[in-house]
Amino acid sequence: MDSRNLIVLTEPEIDTFLVDGRCEVLKQLVDPCQVLNGDGLTADEWRGVLSDYNPEILVAGWKTPALPLDVLSDVAPSLGYVCYLPGSVRKLVSREMIEAGLLVSNWGASISRTVAECALLLALGCLRRAGYWSEYMHNRQGWKDASTQTQSLFDRRVGIHGFGGVAQALVPLLRPFGCTISVYSEGVPAEIYERNGVRSTSSLEALFRENEVLFEVEALTPERRGIIDEAMLRRIPRGGTFVNIARGDLVEEVGLLKVAREGHIQVGLDVYQQEPLPADHGFRGCHNIMMLPHLGGATTDRRRDAADHSLENLKRYKRGESILSPVTVEVYDRST
Amino acid sequence: MDSRNLIVLTEPEIDTFLVDGRCEVLKQLVDPCQVLNGDGLTADEWRGVLSDYNPEILVAGWKTPALPLDVLSDVAPSLGYVCYLPGSVRKLVSREMIEAGLLVSNWGASISRTVAECALLLALGCLRRAGYWSEYMHNRQGWKDASTQTQSLFDRRVGIHGFGGVAQALVPLLRPFGCTISVYSEGVPAEIYERNGVRSTSSLEALFRENEVLFEVEALTPERRGIIDEAMLRRIPRGGTFVNIARGDLVEEVGLLKVAREGHIQVGLDVYQQEPLPADHGFRGCHNIMMLPHLGGATTDRRRDAADHSLENLKRYKRGESILSPVTVEVYDRST
Repeated sequence: MDSRNLIVLTEPEIDTFLVDGRCEVLKQLVDPCQVLNGDGLTADEWRGVLSDYNPEILVAGWKTPALPLDVLSDVAPSLGYVCYLPGSVRKLVSREMIEAGLLVSNWGASISRTVAECALLLALGCLRRAGYWSEYMHNRQGWKDASTQTQSLFDRRVGIHGFGGVAQALVPLLRPFGCTISVYSEGVPAEIYERNGVRSTSSLEALFRENEVLFEVEALTPERRGIIDEAMLRRIPRGGTFVNIARGDLVEEVGLLKVAREGHIQVGLDVYQQEPLPADHGFRGCHNIMMLPHLGGATTDRRRDAADHSLENLKRYKRGESILSPVTVEVYDRST
Repeated sequence: MDSRNLIVLTEPEIDTFLVDGRCEVLKQLVDPCQVLNGDGLTADEWRGVLSDYNPEILVAGWKTPALPLDVLSDVAPSLGYVCYLPGSVRKLVSREMIEAGLLVSNWGASISRTVAECALLLALGCLRRAGYWSEYMHNRQGWKDASTQTQSLFDRRVGIHGFGGVAQALVPLLRPFGCTISVYSEGVPAEIYERNGVRSTSSLEALFRENEVLFEVEALTPERRGIIDEAMLRRIPRGGTFVNIARGDLVEEVGLLKVAREGHIQVGLDVYQQEPLPADHGFRGCHNIMMLPHLGGATTDRRRDAADHSLENLKRYKRGESILSPVTVEVYDRST
């Protein structure tokens, strides 16, 4: 059966991920190939495309339709590698396909530094209450007064929950501020902490009790659902800051709202249990919560980093080498 | 005539500047001394205090009343050094007193790093439009959509106008982002640029034309009033960011508002021509302007840095050495 690779991306995806010659590099890497816009294809049309081209490699984006469940057995038996340019592959690929041996990759850790950057923005914003001031100055003619309190990140005790790619990208951004950085993350070898010049803390409770600026960057697992609950948040010293840039489900939101409303800590959030955040959610209007609508991942201008990561993986695949950060069953189960 | 030094500070000033034993250190340094709260004293009462104590050293704060114009000739002829813990001494000391030989110091460059931190916050905030999102999510049930654009500071071309203490404190905060940093500032020796690892640009126009994120941190002089006008701002490439953390009068605000309203650049402001910002100012409600109410200087928690700077100066004064960053006539004329 004849096979031709597929690049199924929309024009905006091509224009932002595949800038500065990356589109040509991609086409050469997966030659012979066909470029298609999969947005709006019916399931039958998509099935037909997959069957006609029977690709070995599928390069996919946000608008690529879900793969039919029998894609490997019947529709496109040559399919060996799905190279997904963005993040979560859940809408595209089933768990069973990965179990059956389909190779899958996404943007992996290439976006860690922009997520870390967003975490820093939220922390600096909480310390100066930038979210509050924006609203107060734009809508309510606000200006500071004698009671205005401001805080700096310089010389702070910073606690990081989790020590994956985002946390490790955050550390160098914090360095110039002279922060003392402590980390709690289960199962991370001591040498990783040492190499990054941070100290580890004996428990999550101690991390929250002993630090002033807390970053939540841990991976979501079933056991960690709601691990940041009201009691945990009450351990943060008065005047402290809590930033969640990881997953909304790590936090028990009712407890967070209760603590936030008391006004003794500042909160910066990019992620929520339910996204889009419901219109009537209690967070809205609570002005010591600085909010962003899940913008942490690859910024529009840095989608090129995700493309570079995928191009590197395609090169490795073509050379018969193993790819970087494959979406294994474990990774799949942890993703949202 | 007998002389006793004066520490004229309010309780909140003592509680925030003179933390962790600094108050005792100060008292010992200026012994014999009297601690007074000058807030609310009438001009006659204040004149009486100065006359009674005839201090050689006056340690002062925001609420210390203005020195009478004849303080050196008549009221307190022993006065040799005014150590002002905060910034602008204009309300306390006259130009003539400095000309007459009165030694004056303020927080000098000790606050540069927190101003630089605020500049970074505004730049990161502009790139992700954090001011807009705060308002939109809190008040208008907002969430991102397919048209949402986000930008990162990583690998950006950054331009800095001015290269004093704040700019030099900003450079290390930008380093981890891998920015290419260009500077324009008249009269700065090339070796200063080299030592800080930045390149200099031939003109202010070139700085604005060739960079994507522009920081205004130059000192205000009469010639620089309104130097950032509409034409200058139009040189910033589309999608760029302009941050002013220096002085409002460096910017021609009517031109800035006109350019900002067109929406092609993001703007971050901490300073304004008129402060407090008038309630009906056009900036209010223009949501690609992220605003703070002049919070750049020493944050509440870092007033201790300003105190340390003053304590160092008092030690130098007592040893007969020259003090750090004295408020000379030139500095006085440039201050606001």
